[in-house]
Parts: sequence; C-alpha cells; structure tokens
Amino acid sequence: MDLDRNVHDHIRLFHLPNDAAGVSILPPLAFAGGRAHIAPAMTASLHTIGAARTASLDPMIQLVAADLNHVNAVILARMQSEVALIPELAGHLIAGGGKRMRPMLTLACARLLDYSGMRQHRLAAAVEFIHTATLLHDDVVDGSGLRRGRRTANIIWGNPASVLVGDFLFARAFELMVEDGSLKVLRILSRASSIIAEGEVNQLTAQRRVETSEDRYLDIISAKTAALFAAACRIAAVVAEREEAAETHLDAYGRNLGIAFQLIDDAIDYASDAATMGKGVGDDFRDGKVTLPVILAYARGTEEERGFWRQAMAGGRAEDADLAHATSLLRSSGALDDTLERARHYGQRAIDALGPFPAGGAKAALIEAVEFAIARAY
Amino acid sequence: MDLDRNVHDHIRLFHLPNDAAGVSILPPLAFAGGRAHIAPAMTASLHTIGAARTASLDPMIQLVAADLNHVNAVILARMQSEVALIPELAGHLIAGGGKRMRPMLTLACARLLDYSGMRQHRLAAAVEFIHTATLLHDDVVDGSGLRRGRRTANIIWGNPASVLVGDFLFARAFELMVEDGSLKVLRILSRASSIIAEGEVNQLTAQRRVETSEDRYLDIISAKTAALFAAACRIAAVVAEREEAAETHLDAYGRNLGIAFQLIDDAIDYASDAATMGKGVGDDFRDGKVTLPVILAYARGTEEERGFWRQAMAGGRAEDADLAHATSLLRSSGALDDTLERARHYGQRAIDALGPFPAGGAKAALIEAVEFAIARAY
Repeated sequence: MDLDRNVHDHIRLFHLPNDAAGVSILPPLAFAGGRAHIAPAMTASLHTIGAARTASLDPMIQLVAADLNHVNAVILARMQSEVALIPELAGHLIAGGGKRMRPMLTLACARLLDYSGMRQHRLAAAVEFIHTATLLHDDVVDGSGLRRGRRTANIIWGNPASVLVGDFLFARAFELMVEDGSLKVLRILSRASSIIAEGEVNQLTAQRRVETSEDRYLDIISAKTAALFAAACRIAAVVAEREEAAETHLDAYGRNLGIAFQLIDDAIDYASDAATMGKGVGDDFRDGKVTLPVILAYARGTEEERGFWRQAMAGGRAEDADLAHATSLLRSSGALDDTLERARHYGQRAIDALGPFPAGGAKAALIEAVEFAIARAY
Repeated sequence: MDLDRNVHDHIRLFHLPNDAAGVSILPPLAFAGGRAHIAPAMTASLHTIGAARTASLDPMIQLVAADLNHVNAVILARMQSEVALIPELAGHLIAGGGKRMRPMLTLACARLLDYSGMRQHRLAAAVEFIHTATLLHDDVVDGSGLRRGRRTANIIWGNPASVLVGDFLFARAFELMVEDGSLKVLRILSRASSIIAEGEVNQLTAQRRVETSEDRYLDIISAKTAALFAAACRIAAVVAEREEAAETHLDAYGRNLGIAFQLIDDAIDYASDAATMGKGVGDDFRDGKVTLPVILAYARGTEEERGFWRQAMAGGRAEDADLAHATSLLRSSGALDDTLERARHYGQRAIDALGPFPAGGAKAALIEAVEFAIARAY
C-alpha cells in the first residue's frame, strides 16, 4: 500500500483564479508548514484557517506511522476470506489510494491523550472497514465509475459483489469491536453507522431537489460524513479511559473537521480536474447532487439562473458547456468562495475544540490536518 | 401486521404428484398435528420427519404470541427515522407478510429454557432487522421483482434506497444489541453477519456454475441461511445464562433447521406456483442459481441432459418450456425427491439436537416447526 505516494498525490495544491468575479483573496501565508516534526511551540493560536496553503498531512502521518503499520496489518489480515472475491474486491479499494484519514484520526487522538496501549489498532481498522463499506455502497448508489483515479469495484465486479462485500466489511468491523470488548466503543460506532445510513438515505431523497435548504444539507453531511470522523476521534478517549469531557471535545473536533472536509470536497467537484482529484470533475453536477455551492448559487440566483439550476439538477443540462456555465455561476455568485468560507468556519471550530488538550506534536498534527483539509481547495 | 393470515397462507400445503417418475412415497401420517396446545407427552421420539403433513407453525405462534407482540413493538419503534423513506421502505418489507421465523425461534428457545425476563424481545428484533437487511440486499443482488406476493422494495423505491435502508437496519440491529449489553450476544450475531455476507458472496461466485459441488452448496446455505437461524436460537441460551452446552445444542437445532428450510425452498422453487409461494416459480432457474436439485440432476444426467443444464444455468434456456423440461428432469432423476430427503435428514438432526431439553410445550412447538418447514414441500 503506497500510502506516501497517494498522500502526495492528494496534496498537489491548485489555485482558484484570482481574477474570477467575486473571489475573495485569502489571508497571506502566516507560516510555511514544514514537512514534518512540527515544533511544539506551534499551537492553534498561531494558526487561523486559510493561513497555511502548504499545510500537509505529513506531521500526522509521521506521528502515527508505526501505529498505522499495525492497523494496516489488521486490515490486511481481517479482510481475508476463503471466498476469494472478498479480499480481491476489498483490497482493490482498501489498497487503492485512500489516505486512511479516519483511522489516522483515531491513532492521532490516542497519541494526543498519551495512550500507550495497543487497542487503537484494531478499532482504527474497524473504522476503516466501516468507511470502506460505505464507499462500496456509495459507488453502487451513485453508479460511480471512478474513485481515486481508478475504476470502481462496482464497474469491475458489478453492483451485487460491491453490495455484499460492503456488508461483509461492515460485519467484520463489528467483529473487531467485539474483540476489543468495549461496549462504549460499540455504542459509539453502531450509532455512527446508523446515522451514516440515515444521512445517505436523506441525501438520496434530497437528490435533484435544488430547493434543499442549507440546514438540511448540513444535516445530511453531518450524518453521512462527519459522524464517522467524530466517532473515530471519540473512541480514542474511550480507549485511553479519559473522562466524558475528553470524549466530547474529540467528538467536536472530528465532527467539525468532517463537515469542513465534505464542504471542501463539494467545492472541489466544481473546481478540480479529474487528474488531480482522481474522480471525474462535475460528477456531483451530472448526478444532480445538490451540494452547498449549488444551494448558495440557487438562493442568490436570478430567475433565469434558478431555471438553469432546476434543469441542471433534474438532469437536463449534462453537457460540458453546462458544467462550465454552472462553474461560472458558482464563482460569480460567490457560492464557491462562501462554501470555502463555511468550511473554514467549521475547520476553526475543530481546532478550537482541541483547546483543552496540551500543546505538543500530536495537537500540532491534528491542527495541521484541519488546515490540510481546507488547503486542498486552494 | 396480519401475521396470522400470512402464516396460514404459508401452510396451504400442496402435493407432489405421486405418478411422477421416481417420486418416493412419504411415510403415512403418524399423527395429525393439532392447531395448538400440543400435549406435553408429544416428544421427538414420536415424530419422524415427513410424518406430519399437516404440521403447522401454530403451536410456536401460540407459544410466543405475547412475546412477539413485544418484539413487533420494538421493531416498529426502532425502524422509525426522521428520514421518512426509511420507515416507509422498511415497513413495506417488515409488515409485508414475513413469518417472523427467526425472532420466533429466539423467543421459543427462551421459553424452552424457562427464561422469564424481557431481554429476548430486543434481541429478537435485532435478529429480524439483520434478516430484513439481508432480504433488501438480496433482492437488489438478484434483481428480484416479487417477494411474498408483493412487489419488492427495489422495484418500488429503487436499488439505492434498498441498499441504504438495508444498511440502516443492519446498524440499528447492532444498536439494539449494544443496548442489551451482552458482548457474547454481540459476538454471536456479528460473527453470524459476516458469515452470512461471506455466504452471499460465495453464492454469487457460484452463480451459473452448474458444476458446483454439493459440499460447496452446503457451505453456501450453511452460511447464507443457517448461520442466522443458529444464532437466533443460540442467543436464547446466552440470555437465559445457560451453560455452553445449551448454546451448542440450540445452535445445532437452528443450523440444521436452517439448512432444511433452505433446501425445501430450493425444491419449492421448482414445484410451487407463484400464487402459493408469493414469488415467481422458476426464479432460481431463470437466475441461473445452482441449487441442490440442479446439482443432483446434473450429476445424474446424461451428456445431453448436462448440456441442457449448462445452457440453462448460463441463461440460454429461459422459456416456460425450458422450465417445464427442467422440472421434468428434476423429477425423473429423483433430484427433487432427494433434495427433500436431504432436508428431512437435516430436519431430523435439528430435532435430535433438542434431545437434552425437557419435554413440554416449547419443545413440542420447536419440533413441529421443523416438521412445518419440511411439510411446506408436500
């Protein structure tokens, strides 16, 4: 699993054109993030979101590298089955360029709490299995053909196999949690799992509905994306046997980071190119996925523009020229910029949630992970 | 939920023609099963499988009626969601004529062990949620249009909704188990869930492969069907805090009943009519599902007949006349009869596994449930 290469693929930054109408200029760089070994002096107060265009995941990767090897070993061992198609299909996705963002969060939060045991490895693997199961089912639901620059499992092996291997990984995640033996962790991750599914169904019923409100959209992404980020962080406090307050803070960190992460993804879908993102640009547009950029542009649009968005989300505007027009509306209305602004807001809240924890390498890495999540869009 | 009506629909018996070549005649009726209140004197030794053509689920239904009301209340309460599509879609299937076979087994086994608490209600609901999630995904995988005489959820709401609501129910099942708080139950049902998914993938890779061996087929149905029957029974012993041996016996009862149940289903698919079964007759045939009747007929067939089966399972023989020819081969080769014979074998083993438990109404009901499962085919 060539993790490093993939992470570097992901941090190839790109820039929004400054000449696009209504595009706000970000604050100048406040620091140039080092590749690793962030000095302990670097605390949240030095960093406002958007200040670190070169923010990277490297500090977090360095922090958890040894742990992540353990997690990868668990993942590899526990995705095995006598039914050969299972490791074949699961391995395609699991080895295929994911950043291991969620398990890394579990590991980094455990470090933040100075936890010195081994329980986090099995649980981080469970988190990744839940995430992978979700991705497999998402690609079936969306009919996606490309993820992280590779053909999706549903294209290679068909929808039935993707559905069933997803089910297997989901069940296997619970087996891992049972082996760990904490009912509290089981409660957190089973709750997160039903919230994720609820969010996915909610998104499905919102599909092509251009009049979806920002509140509803936040509900959707809080469930489908942020709930697992929150749970991944929270369980570290359980393993470290910390008080409820630590759980709550880490939950808030993960939840806000997850929302920021998703909003940036939504923006990137209109501002990226396929080579950079490893997925087709404009996928959301062509799928009629009503994301925050569209919600804002629709709300601010003229009657004519609203007509365009209605047609587009209904599937009647799938040409490249339509996507270009959509992107130009998203820029001129400030919808794309304000989506990023919203993302920065949640990113800042994530960082502030870390306030109660002592400064140090782990905290710095968690903070820079937020900055990295935001910086992907610039 | 009109359970009674549906159960009665299911026990409308039908007969294999006695004049079909190679059809063995069943032993004559040894007793005429009463509608309920089986006398305690009725023990396994009085009943050999196949002896009870009028066997019914009624004794089990009577035994657990009050408990089942509790379970149905839990099911109804816990399939709710603010996302309206979830209870709508889940309710279609959950209220739509299922026998509640698996939760009834949990309840009846708890009675067998004289358990007098309430924990079995929540756990029986969890078992039914796992089963329902599996059915939703199965129908997507098979592209089924009809189940229990009604249009399937995937036809009404589409595959994406069925996949995601299945995920929701699966996660909700684990939430229910966590609320119960037994790690042992969680271990049993998470293991069963991954085995089920493994069996489903195994079946998928065996699809259209007419040379599938009987052993492999038994592996498949042991996983995809019998594992949940076994777990549903086994958890009753955990709740009742019985020794490991009780768990093992109930597990064996459920597992063998599950295998018998599936083999009978396989036979019925070739011998039933759509009105009786609530699914299209010959579905397995048209889907290229290699079940035991086909495996036996292929193994016993002439070269010409094997050619027919190869073509048929590959999808090249989907006409009504082909199905009629298939059924005639299944009868003339004794494949259908011997599938039923195999089912009786597992049914007998299920009954024998109850040996260590004291005679009484619960044991009699569990025995008659096996006879009912078999009698569906006659």
